[in-house]
Amino acid sequence: MTPKFENSGPKPWQATALTLFPDAFPGVLGASIIGSAEKSSIWQLETVDIRKFSTNRHRTVDDTPAGGGPGMVLKPDVADAAINSVARNGRPLIYLTPRGKPLTQERVRELSSGPGLIVFCGRFEGLDQRVIEAHQMEEISIGDFVLAGGEVAAQAMIEACVRLLPGVLGKLESTEDESFETGLLEYPLYTKPREWNDRAIPEVLLSGDHGKIAEWRHQKQIEITKARRPDLWEAYQKGDDHERD
Amino acid sequence: MTPKFENSGPKPWQATALTLFPDAFPGVLGASIIGSAEKSSIWQLETVDIRKFSTNRHRTVDDTPAGGGPGMVLKPDVADAAINSVARNGRPLIYLTPRGKPLTQERVRELSSGPGLIVFCGRFEGLDQRVIEAHQMEEISIGDFVLAGGEVAAQAMIEACVRLLPGVLGKLESTEDESFETGLLEYPLYTKPREWNDRAIPEVLLSGDHGKIAEWRHQKQIEITKARRPDLWEAYQKGDDHERD
Repeated sequence: MTPKFENSGPKPWQATALTLFPDAFPGVLGASIIGSAEKSSIWQLETVDIRKFSTNRHRTVDDTPAGGGPGMVLKPDVADAAINSVARNGRPLIYLTPRGKPLTQERVRELSSGPGLIVFCGRFEGLDQRVIEAHQMEEISIGDFVLAGGEVAAQAMIEACVRLLPGVLGKLESTEDESFETGLLEYPLYTKPREWNDRAIPEVLLSGDHGKIAEWRHQKQIEITKARRPDLWEAYQKGDDHERD
Repeated sequence: MTPKFENSGPKPWQATALTLFPDAFPGVLGASIIGSAEKSSIWQLETVDIRKFSTNRHRTVDDTPAGGGPGMVLKPDVADAAINSVARNGRPLIYLTPRGKPLTQERVRELSSGPGLIVFCGRFEGLDQRVIEAHQMEEISIGDFVLAGGEVAAQAMIEACVRLLPGVLGKLESTEDESFETGLLEYPLYTKPREWNDRAIPEVLLSGDHGKIAEWRHQKQIEITKARRPDLWEAYQKGDDHERD
């Protein structure tokens, strides 16, 4: 477990993960430019072990669902005590669950421009609804599939936010042309060699004609978006490509 | 790096991740029931370091995009050599990219009932399009946000698959009532105590009337799905709630 944040010095972007599996952290967040950015104090990761807030000697954190049904539910008192142990520091409290609203790049941008986030990683069948309501937790889903727990979803969300923090991506990299930033999926990419395995780089990309290249790429973006994401294409045409909610 | 798979003995579900950051693995996949399942040989993880397939002495793996633009593109020869080093064993080759088709629980079920998967983790601006075409890679996205690389997306996809393998979830757990399995989001959950923080468990759940409980839960599923996921609600009404593609 990383130590609690200190109150002195410059303010890094703060991520707190509440989890039953603190060993799952930092995981991917310790590698690549994301790990380097934590070493440079651009951001900080705090992990809180939910099990430490169990009040009985067996360290129980779950119980059977009221009304019956499969699996176990995370107890409201334990979850509440874990949440209350964290310094809020103006950060949103997010609960990752397949029941949540889908995470969007727009929400990622908002989160990355704020002070950080606190994320509660779900396990078992889920968390007692009363805790979600009492803390007005923001329920977010990273996709239409079911995980064993919220830990990997938390890491994905934190990684998406951290890469947008100033100083994380190199100067040569850009986040402007990317998928979701324009409302269209990204165009196909090519690099040297010019011929590889009997496959050539499209002529237009080697023409040096920047207008034609831009036009070709835009056409490809439209083709790919239409074919793979009719939902995004429809939103793009309506001009509300970045509307969340 | 984990060793290559052996050809003798029982056949675990096989996941191979091609990555520029082998240190990011196993990450979350080493923890919880997912890590235990690997120790029990229900599944196996192999990590392939893409950089080892660079042919020059600086270990370069990327180059500038043809036609200009920001960032770097993963070279086709390096990516191809890394892919060809992996024993296919009848597994699909997946490229994780925001340009891909959204991952669904239905695709997760298909993948988990097959022999495993090979996943290519993207980095930089992306991978040369010719490699994607030459290998007929299946392009998948885990959500409408942009990551620093495909590693955390690969871990999410693998975790979603592994939890469905026989013997991974306990007998008391179920995957039938979950979000996306019925086409509706899950109902709210409650557990003891009956009163917590002036908030009571809804009476009906304590009634013992299984018919009423089922009806209340179904109503809640509809309410939550309508409010949060009008897209799923529309699909549910059309009765094509599980249709992919």
